[in-house]
Amino acid sequence: MAYDDEEPRNSSMPENVVYVGKKPAMNYVLAVVTQFNNGARNVTIRARGNTISRAVDVAEIARNRFVTDVRAPPKVVIGSEDLTNEDGTKSKVSSIQILLEK
Amino acid sequence: MAYDDEEPRNSSMPENVVYVGKKPAMNYVLAVVTQFNNGARNVTIRARGNTISRAVDVAEIARNRFVTDVRAPPKVVIGSEDLTNEDGTKSKVSSIQILLEK
Repeated sequence: MAYDDEEPRNSSMPENVVYVGKKPAMNYVLAVVTQFNNGARNVTIRARGNTISRAVDVAEIARNRFVTDVRAPPKVVIGSEDLTNEDGTKSKVSSIQILLEK
Repeated sequence: MAYDDEEPRNSSMPENVVYVGKKPAMNYVLAVVTQFNNGARNVTIRARGNTISRAVDVAEIARNRFVTDVRAPPKVVIGSEDLTNEDGTKSKVSSIQILLEK
């Protein structure tokens, strides 16, 4: 799993993760902005498969319009995850995590 | 432009870029593998908008199945580009570049 080395630096804080799915990008932008407004120093945006493009949109909208004091460029890690299908077969799906940090 | 700082290290070499569009991912995987087989030490995969997810697939398939000696994880940079629409208005589109290097 590519995510294991991306723990928040302050391990006493809960992990601030926004999982991007099929809703409009602004829903997830709002989630990111809310986490920063609640005092988070970093927020990780994660997605798999077809929603990866939307995750990049979310990160770009958040940092260009709403949370302009995060470090640029954000750290981005891509990887692959194993999925188990309904019929029990396995397949691979691409994943992305984008770390926005102040 | 986020791309300007990502020149190949050997500036006498032509830049090895694969632009990912709407064709099946394997078409672009083949382009990446061909560039490495022709002696390239690095290949940059670029995409904009909805094809960003496919660009991540291309990078993951290439490095997991065909070019297994590239450095992991690949360097990934996300950004935004200005597009001029047909009616002359401007809009932003997200972009990604993924650097595979031996």
